[in-house]
Amino acid sequence: MTLPVVALFTVKAGHEETVEQLFRGVIEATLKEEGCISYQLNRDIENPRRFIWTEEWQSRELLQKHIESPHISKLFAELPPYIEHSEVVALQKLAGGVA
Amino acid sequence: MTLPVVALFTVKAGHEETVEQLFRGVIEATLKEEGCISYQLNRDIENPRRFIWTEEWQSRELLQKHIESPHISKLFAELPPYIEHSEVVALQKLAGGVA
Repeated sequence: MTLPVVALFTVKAGHEETVEQLFRGVIEATLKEEGCISYQLNRDIENPRRFIWTEEWQSRELLQKHIESPHISKLFAELPPYIEHSEVVALQKLAGGVA
Repeated sequence: MTLPVVALFTVKAGHEETVEQLFRGVIEATLKEEGCISYQLNRDIENPRRFIWTEEWQSRELLQKHIESPHISKLFAELPPYIEHSEVVALQKLAGGVA
């Protein structure tokens, strides 16, 4: 069973550009990681200070490996001064999917 | 440009089963709707009172048509007594995607 993930980041006002660049900087490496099915950066249309990742991973273990990877560890070390609120939510798929 | 959506519903304690059945009941009809690319029901592994939909639509107009459809109107009329907090977030895709 694969593992969908959503990660929600609300950015402190004025730091949106900085955070977007930090986020964009980890995409290429992540898409090459073992177990990465999808890894997409999105922005809340109504609230441009909120970025929402929609992701899918082969397993919990491979997601954990991702979180502990050098490029994500570096990102998580750099983000705090810019972030008002954040949440990474691992999901269990119940039903539905691609139409 | 397609439209990703995440919808977050926190359910009042004791009503999880009822809400899950209500949610499951709209999936089949929704997957057949014009413009529906994906429509997936997920549950927060850490917080079983929270359901998170991950969706993708062809356009804002077709998402709006979905929200106004009979089966979703009926769902949104039935949900309130069971829901503690809810949020439907329309997203702009920035980067990344399928690995």
